[in-house]
Amino acid sequence: MPEQTPLDLPEGDPFGPHNLPYGVFSLADERDRRVGVRLGSHVLDAGAAAHALGSPYASLLAQPSLAPLLAAGRQTWRDVRRALTAWVTVPAHREVVEPLFEPLSAVRLHLPFDVADYVDFYASENHATNLGRLFRPDSEPLLPNWKHLPVGYHGRAGTVVVSGTDVVRPSGQRKAPYATEPTFGPSTKLDIETEIGFVVGAPSELGTPVPLSGFRDHVFGLCLLNDWSARDIQPWEQVPLGPHTAKSFATSVSAWVTPLEALDAARVAPPVRDVQPLPYLDDTKAEEPGGYDIRITVALNGEVISEPPFAGMYWTGAQMLAHMTVAGASLRTGDLYGSGTISGPERRQRGSLIELTWNGAEALALASGERRFLVDGDEVTMTAWAPGPDGTKVGLGSVSGRIRAAV
Amino acid sequence: MPEQTPLDLPEGDPFGPHNLPYGVFSLADERDRRVGVRLGSHVLDAGAAAHALGSPYASLLAQPSLAPLLAAGRQTWRDVRRALTAWVTVPAHREVVEPLFEPLSAVRLHLPFDVADYVDFYASENHATNLGRLFRPDSEPLLPNWKHLPVGYHGRAGTVVVSGTDVVRPSGQRKAPYATEPTFGPSTKLDIETEIGFVVGAPSELGTPVPLSGFRDHVFGLCLLNDWSARDIQPWEQVPLGPHTAKSFATSVSAWVTPLEALDAARVAPPVRDVQPLPYLDDTKAEEPGGYDIRITVALNGEVISEPPFAGMYWTGAQMLAHMTVAGASLRTGDLYGSGTISGPERRQRGSLIELTWNGAEALALASGERRFLVDGDEVTMTAWAPGPDGTKVGLGSVSGRIRAAV
Repeated sequence: MPEQTPLDLPEGDPFGPHNLPYGVFSLADERDRRVGVRLGSHVLDAGAAAHALGSPYASLLAQPSLAPLLAAGRQTWRDVRRALTAWVTVPAHREVVEPLFEPLSAVRLHLPFDVADYVDFYASENHATNLGRLFRPDSEPLLPNWKHLPVGYHGRAGTVVVSGTDVVRPSGQRKAPYATEPTFGPSTKLDIETEIGFVVGAPSELGTPVPLSGFRDHVFGLCLLNDWSARDIQPWEQVPLGPHTAKSFATSVSAWVTPLEALDAARVAPPVRDVQPLPYLDDTKAEEPGGYDIRITVALNGEVISEPPFAGMYWTGAQMLAHMTVAGASLRTGDLYGSGTISGPERRQRGSLIELTWNGAEALALASGERRFLVDGDEVTMTAWAPGPDGTKVGLGSVSGRIRAAV
Repeated sequence: MPEQTPLDLPEGDPFGPHNLPYGVFSLADERDRRVGVRLGSHVLDAGAAAHALGSPYASLLAQPSLAPLLAAGRQTWRDVRRALTAWVTVPAHREVVEPLFEPLSAVRLHLPFDVADYVDFYASENHATNLGRLFRPDSEPLLPNWKHLPVGYHGRAGTVVVSGTDVVRPSGQRKAPYATEPTFGPSTKLDIETEIGFVVGAPSELGTPVPLSGFRDHVFGLCLLNDWSARDIQPWEQVPLGPHTAKSFATSVSAWVTPLEALDAARVAPPVRDVQPLPYLDDTKAEEPGGYDIRITVALNGEVISEPPFAGMYWTGAQMLAHMTVAGASLRTGDLYGSGTISGPERRQRGSLIELTWNGAEALALASGERRFLVDGDEVTMTAWAPGPDGTKVGLGSVSGRIRAAV
């Protein structure tokens, strides 16, 4: 039997020509980075293909970063995607394109763009409710602002790392509720947050808010995101200005950015909101549904511990973008914003260990041992897919990271 | 009388050869940006001077940004400063250097480097106490963590703008304490925050904290910073994850970065702390005092409204840096962190309008009219100087911005 070629994909491959996510890869020399497009278990050197086929997008794609493509704007995103689809499906191109594929096993994947600003939201009602119950058991679980605006804050862009990067256990201050003084040491409650990340392509002007309808003009695509969190450090430091060191030591993202166009079949209506949002956030008359039906699986040392459903998020990516810019903040190419932890109503749909183990009260019994929070050596992998056209699946790849002992 | 040359400065000029702050300027073509060094009321084209004098630093200085110099590290910062000092003081260089000066009135000043990550602290005890009294009148004004760690949070790097940039009044949500629903509109409590900014030059490794003693290896210099704030928007949105849109629409910085070496004579001991900090923040045995005696003047439409003293800050720049990295966050060239609003114990030393007017209860009577918060057209200018060697003054320049009406 002849070896299968990159262009002969098995039926139903979630990385077929209907998907075509973008990344940045290198071969032997890590400094020689190139934009790649994933097809099955191979990556196409997109710049080389564009050159070989005399495409006008050669200079946009023969780059060490996705940034030029991201900056080019929606019409170009569409045109480049149409060209790529032709390169991998039209038989006449086969002879030219096939040699420009590398097997994924032979390449190294890199952070596909420099993150400009990183904002993290808190858009799952189930997650916010669970955390409210844990930390404010005698009050309403949701704070009064939660259904009026997508709560969010700025994180550290410089510590966003690509999937596969080890995470060093952070150290810091924490104070037990009845202790009189804080203590210092490696985090004892190292946790994950299962999120979807929105990658901003086209910039906007300072002083000019982006309306709900501008979402697809500015957002290029989605990635998977794990917002590592030190649950013991966070409560002590976050009053009154929010999380800082407990969430800025590492944020992992998938190596592949899935363009929004590949996810059109996955769009779903967001949940009905029981509080009327202010006009700049009111999407009830939007032309397109704002939710995305993305199914995520979270595995700890290979064992599935959760399956958070993105479709149920209270706030959409368009609403987060409108809120983020409502006071006039500008967007830059490479801005990244996260949805916040995705949790569904079921126990097995919770996107963080603090929810899955109820702040450590109920250990998870796993093949690798009992877990309340992460121990050194643990590896967490999140994978996802979404419904594609004609019954296909669109793979969003995975984001993984392994915990290294504190320094 | 012959016109005074750039090299013949009046006695006591705060921008004499003992200062030499760095900036980026352009002449007619705004895209042609160059590193400049200020001397008196002129700016030296540093790259052109380096070329003309055959300096090994020509490639580092003939740049459109300070980034390459910032990244070069402390030894190079020292060497370049020594070279610059010679160029503007040794008579043999006069003929070459003098034509490479431009009057400040003929140049446009730009943001001198791309801000990587921006973190804002809250390091003035007087400021934190004033805000505690205003917002939590029935509790201890300082929260329990305040004297154990320098409270801080990430802000938006992409909206840091250079002095002279207009600021559009932000709009957003706010809710009055006894209202049942939030309302939307232009901020009615637009405020300033008078701060010093720390400019990070040399990067650090992810997973490796920077100790107190690493401050001068990583921080290149200081600037003035005005963290514009919408006081009506902030309280409603900031629970529980901190400020977001109320503080991310614009942050203004001075065009000049003063190198730490120019401020050696301004170093002072920080106040005695009445709470023993954890070892990573304990500077009682530090070799050098961690405070800086910087005197700031805040003017509203030309009239002085406050003179905040930086010397009295509870937490130092070295402590903020050690805390920011304690969990392993890495530094990048171009990271910027702000001290938080600087307020002294006296009423005329408060660094924000919310403190000066006690949240609008006590209007300021100014020549331009009564002010509680900023009105459209208002211009705020902060200027500063610090003691230099031998009785000189070191000017830190100014940061100014004018309020434009909401869109």
